[in-house]
Amino acid sequence: MTKVTLQPAERLDDLLTHELKIIQSEEVFSFSMDAVLLARFPKVPARGRILDLCTGNGVIPLLLTTRTGADIDGVEIQPRLADMAKRSVAFNALTERVHIIQGDLKSFVPEGSRPYYDLITVNPPYMPLTAGDIKENEHIAMARHELGCTLEDVLHTCARLTRTGGRVAMVHRASRLVDIMSLMRHYRIEPKRIRFVHPKEGAEANMVLIEGIRDGKPDVRLLPPLIVYNNNNEYCKELMDIYYGEQSELGNQ
Amino acid sequence: MTKVTLQPAERLDDLLTHELKIIQSEEVFSFSMDAVLLARFPKVPARGRILDLCTGNGVIPLLLTTRTGADIDGVEIQPRLADMAKRSVAFNALTERVHIIQGDLKSFVPEGSRPYYDLITVNPPYMPLTAGDIKENEHIAMARHELGCTLEDVLHTCARLTRTGGRVAMVHRASRLVDIMSLMRHYRIEPKRIRFVHPKEGAEANMVLIEGIRDGKPDVRLLPPLIVYNNNNEYCKELMDIYYGEQSELGNQ
Repeated sequence: MTKVTLQPAERLDDLLTHELKIIQSEEVFSFSMDAVLLARFPKVPARGRILDLCTGNGVIPLLLTTRTGADIDGVEIQPRLADMAKRSVAFNALTERVHIIQGDLKSFVPEGSRPYYDLITVNPPYMPLTAGDIKENEHIAMARHELGCTLEDVLHTCARLTRTGGRVAMVHRASRLVDIMSLMRHYRIEPKRIRFVHPKEGAEANMVLIEGIRDGKPDVRLLPPLIVYNNNNEYCKELMDIYYGEQSELGNQ
Repeated sequence: MTKVTLQPAERLDDLLTHELKIIQSEEVFSFSMDAVLLARFPKVPARGRILDLCTGNGVIPLLLTTRTGADIDGVEIQPRLADMAKRSVAFNALTERVHIIQGDLKSFVPEGSRPYYDLITVNPPYMPLTAGDIKENEHIAMARHELGCTLEDVLHTCARLTRTGGRVAMVHRASRLVDIMSLMRHYRIEPKRIRFVHPKEGAEANMVLIEGIRDGKPDVRLLPPLIVYNNNNEYCKELMDIYYGEQSELGNQ
């Protein structure tokens, strides 16, 4: 294992699968369950190119390496987070396969002769700018609120950079479902698989996982709901399997 | 009780609640579970005006009379079905409150000085015209396929006839979710409550119940899934309660 240099307030956490480690910081960025679910959700190409937008500390590219041999690019606008992601990639000896780029997704153009991706994943900021005051520090605020990019910016970028027949997978707040559906169709990323995440049985969904296909035909599958906690406030069995990597495509078993 | 005159192949069925009866015919039209779920799903005004489009044999207006004192209009394009609906309304002594109109929803204009409804319900034909050959007789085909009206015709009519702040409730195939969301937003009927119907636990959803508000603000609630059958192939408890009328608004308890 390579040595890792941690900045103040950073720690090295276990990703609980394939002995992967990740640099986190409560002051700057820590990944949430949403990212883990998203990394397990889409159908992934065995080879080819994958892009993760709003990659944060690189959690999704790191987890995707356990499912595919594809090249994975991760784009993050915040220099501090992109730096954390790069050091995590190096620590896990994945620099050959995972490339972290610091930059704005709106102007991002990938290197290489084939500018289109087979799969784009994105766990974007959830909160529209109109949704009240921002109380967090700048790092956390930018990851949570649409300060640097809106949902439309994200989907426009996905459409620009996905090959025809390629996939786009997103996790978002369930309450924004209509925005997501309308914009995906507008940008010709047709929703094909949707899975709602309910915190408990009998509760409303708070998150949604969506996979679309660039220029796909209309016809969407609504997968069984994913329930997070059982009545004893423990993770349900499926969640445990997801965290410990025993599933391939979430909901496709 | 009034006398009822049945045409050939017709029968008088029990609606299982409030002693309501309904004229059905396997050759022409019989209501399905979808209609029962839709009649229980929306928030209904205590008074005012309700419209049911594609009313068929009038099952939804009949069931709605158990939940509200509002005036209910039902529009059906097929003369044979509209006639069945009218005779059912008369048999249940509901002619003061339920009015069946034979006509095309695309050109329908309600009577009275207030041309806008507080609630519109609709269980439209599910199948686009492109979806393969039509094998049924003309009555059944018209109820199932978009022969007389498309989803867009239906939502355009809903937008034209609902007051600002009024509701539109629909049941449809889950696979057409994206069409429904996009068209509802286009016609300014903002989806506000969605409930997916899964035939069994662990199965994909095959139906969806949607309630929108005319000129409502974006922000949708994803209600807990509705599971139809348990593992013994019997109706789940919630379905039994729905059939026997022990619930008011489906999913809002």
